[in-house]
Amino acid sequence: MKISGRNKLEATVKEVVKGNVMAKVVMDHKGTELVAAITIDSVDDLGIKAGDKVTALVKATEMMIIK
Amino acid sequence: MKISGRNKLEATVKEVVKGNVMAKVVMDHKGTELVAAITIDSVDDLGIKAGDKVTALVKATEMMIIK
Amino acid sequence: MKISGRNKLEATVKEVVKGNVMAKVVMDHKGTELVAAITIDSVDDLGIKAGDKVTALVKATEMMIIK
Amino acid sequence: MKISGRNKLEATVKEVVKGNVMAKVVMDHKGTELVAAITIDSVDDLGIKAGDKVTALVKATEMMIIK
Amino acid sequence: MKISGRNKLEATVKEVVKGNVMAKVVMDHKGTELVAAITIDSVDDLGIKAGDKVTALVKATEMMIIK
Amino acid sequence: MKISGRNKLEATVKEVVKGNVMAKVVMDHKGTELVAAITIDSVDDLGIKAGDKVTALVKATEMMIIK
Repeated sequence: MKISGRNKLEATVKEVVKGNVMAKVVMDHKGTELVAAITIDSVDDLGIKAGDKVTALVKATEMMIIK
Repeated sequence: MKISGRNKLEATVKEVVKGNVMAKVVMDHKGTELVAAITIDSVDDLGIKAGDKVTALVKATEMMIIK
Repeated sequence: MKISGRNKLEATVKEVVKGNVMAKVVMDHKGTELVAAITIDSVDDLGIKAGDKVTALVKATEMMIIK
Repeated sequence: MKISGRNKLEATVKEVVKGNVMAKVVMDHKGTELVAAITIDSVDDLGIKAGDKVTALVKATEMMIIK
Repeated sequence: MKISGRNKLEATVKEVVKGNVMAKVVMDHKGTELVAAITIDSVDDLGIKAGDKVTALVKATEMMIIK
Repeated sequence: MKISGRNKLEATVKEVVKGNVMAKVVMDHKGTELVAAITIDSVDDLGIKAGDKVTALVKATEMMIIK
């Protein structure tokens, strides 16, 4: 099984903060902090918790460039 | 000047491919390949070319997690 | 392996149109036409072609509602 | 009036969960569950509630493919 | 009919550039230039051309802030 | 420093509503109301508050058209 999304970053979950609908998942990727805002349903469905080894996924059309 | 987008990845541009409307910018971030699909206008406006030091920017709501 | 994206629609690929950077993938999901604009790199990497059984994936934050 | 967004899925609202800023709208589309994360302002403005017949809208650039 | 997307900007189309898959639609909104990258299918379906009065639509979760 | 995102709208912050994870930032742009849903971390990091002069940023691939 492959996903079309081009950007896949291996990361370790550092913190999960759950609101009523959305959750913030803070990750570490080779010393760079990543933050994903996903539904709390996704956090529960995948059982995401601090210490987990995960992959952050970003579609190419969602990535901007600063120069 | 600060941007609300939470995910900022320092990268080096490896390749720029321009179509009629969209361009593909391939980058290297600490050994991980990143791909951004942005308009050719943005590529021209920022003068993005191979070898450039740039920052890839992703809004937290655009990042998914695979586990 | 699970993905946080909440919307997963089983579909059959009807047509793939490739430009220089982006490709259009037209799919059929239970009689409803779906259209995804992804990079040609993704089309090549996954080997997407007419007749393929695939799953269309959409993050919950990318779905709007018309009423 | 027409919208450029290519993916339009007829659905019935099953559940609305409101947080402080965002709301989760769970829908049924021909037996497939859809989940949209939209602002509570949108839920109030459109008067979205369980039982409503709605259309889920997704821009082609926001749809990924799993194969 | 109402759409959940919160940001609606009245604009006049200034230019349409069509590639093989994607099109660039340049608009004027009260003196500010707007650029939308949509499929050529959408341009054809809506018949978008220079001089058209349109509304640019952006979901609240897709808007960032620079300060 | 330049950002690839094509749509930049000068605006004044009218209201900030903070939830547990996400915040709603309501802005005025030449008489048109804009609404951005960003993380509360971004609101705190940029110190966004009513009265601030800011720029709303939208990637071209995130803008739809209604006609």
